[in-house]
Amino acid sequence: MADLRPPEHQVAGHRASEDNLGPLVDDAGLFYKPLQAGDRGEHELAFYTAFSAHPAVPPRIRDAFFPCFHGTRLIPTAASTGEPYPHIVLEDILAGIAVPCVADIKIGACTWPPRAPEPYVAKCLAKDRETTSALLGFRVSGVRVAGHGGAVWLPERSELKGIDTAGVRRLLRRYVSSCGGDGTNCALAAAVYGGDGGVLAQLRELKAWFEEQTLFHFYSASILLGYDANAVSAPGGGVRVKLVDFAHVDEGEGVIDHNFLGGLCSLIKFIADIVAEASEMASSGP
Amino acid sequence: MADLRPPEHQVAGHRASEDNLGPLVDDAGLFYKPLQAGDRGEHELAFYTAFSAHPAVPPRIRDAFFPCFHGTRLIPTAASTGEPYPHIVLEDILAGIAVPCVADIKIGACTWPPRAPEPYVAKCLAKDRETTSALLGFRVSGVRVAGHGGAVWLPERSELKGIDTAGVRRLLRRYVSSCGGDGTNCALAAAVYGGDGGVLAQLRELKAWFEEQTLFHFYSASILLGYDANAVSAPGGGVRVKLVDFAHVDEGEGVIDHNFLGGLCSLIKFIADIVAEASEMASSGP
Repeated sequence: MADLRPPEHQVAGHRASEDNLGPLVDDAGLFYKPLQAGDRGEHELAFYTAFSAHPAVPPRIRDAFFPCFHGTRLIPTAASTGEPYPHIVLEDILAGIAVPCVADIKIGACTWPPRAPEPYVAKCLAKDRETTSALLGFRVSGVRVAGHGGAVWLPERSELKGIDTAGVRRLLRRYVSSCGGDGTNCALAAAVYGGDGGVLAQLRELKAWFEEQTLFHFYSASILLGYDANAVSAPGGGVRVKLVDFAHVDEGEGVIDHNFLGGLCSLIKFIADIVAEASEMASSGP
Repeated sequence: MADLRPPEHQVAGHRASEDNLGPLVDDAGLFYKPLQAGDRGEHELAFYTAFSAHPAVPPRIRDAFFPCFHGTRLIPTAASTGEPYPHIVLEDILAGIAVPCVADIKIGACTWPPRAPEPYVAKCLAKDRETTSALLGFRVSGVRVAGHGGAVWLPERSELKGIDTAGVRRLLRRYVSSCGGDGTNCALAAAVYGGDGGVLAQLRELKAWFEEQTLFHFYSASILLGYDANAVSAPGGGVRVKLVDFAHVDEGEGVIDHNFLGGLCSLIKFIADIVAEASEMASSGP
């Protein structure tokens, strides 16, 4: 366990430090997520346990869009208490990426489960209205863009909180732009968002499942996008689209997750618009 | 104007009477909706005016899914004031139906526009959580089922308010069941919900438009379903799927209406399940 370290690619949530618990990764491609306090940690663990064994989840969906679940482990912590602390052990979905470009996008206009207690509802509702969640059906919780030369764009969380619709559009453009230029040249849009294995194709596959699945409602979950700035044009491309953060997942009880699906469709439209623009620019270029 | 009368098929909203304004219909197939108080009426009128002339709305969508707009007219009222009152003049979307079976389904988990004032948000949110809106992405605001023999099922609004997921499923079954039987035989499911011109096919066409359109956000609007119990099996069938109630429509500002779309997808799943069940029952029947 000597190789445990905070992931370089983390863009949202608490970071591990001497005083704080935070996720860790190792060289074997595993991701260790500290069990969250209260019932959140138990809730997330219960979801992973149920989901990873659920006979009605198509294996293709589980493999393509969810981190593989490897149980729990007690990990000695660097935090002040020094006590071993339980962690959920997951596949590190960004393992093997040399220069990670990551976006954490929280999906859904509403981030609270319908049966949540009143103060929690009020807190989430206020945040959903302050951010773009209510208006766009999603909000960007974190982003990291890295270019060949080592330049990294990693905006502060406070900076992301205040952005509006135009800001989200700009951010989703910048995520597929080469660092160092004007920041929104969308040079990588076709390679990352477009094509057979690109983000758009993967999101559409996920959407088709959400139109049918009535097993789970993914309140407050995120879609994590990842690609390797050093290997964008490699075959397969290594573009990753994964769901993460399941502390507020509810049972579906025979109803589709219209809240997640609506937000997903909105994100798809934003990304499809960028792909279409980039394709127009390419065909009308010099 | 001597033939003006309250529509027999009205299932939601205020009914016209000596003391109240309410919608009226005439023999020419027109529907007169009293301009709502406050800015709601003006807002709805502004929507109809903008929508009916908007170059980016596909004519097929306008014709298939929206009542045709015929301006406004001052109508002498039977109400106590006796003053002529302005009405929005629309196509009577249920004209020509001899024995109307109607369902008014308010679409969207959230019925308030994001910029609505606080007390209105609180009132809507409470109602969205008390009814099935938050959980299912839609709620049934009214229903009328009429059978050949003259039997009519027209539940009270208070009865509809309290229903849960199972109740909605039962109601959507009963809507396509012959009156007089056990109420949920789904004898008309294939004819009304299924087939090329059926409700499901029409809802899916509407969904495809909502995946793309970023012109309007239809907060608190309803989908009205209608068919003629006397002519279910007639060619074309006369099954109608229309959007109504536009007092809270917002501009889309380049973003899809993920709230309406999510609820629409949820309704589609409910109806697709009933069509699939009915088709299984038919093929395994005696």
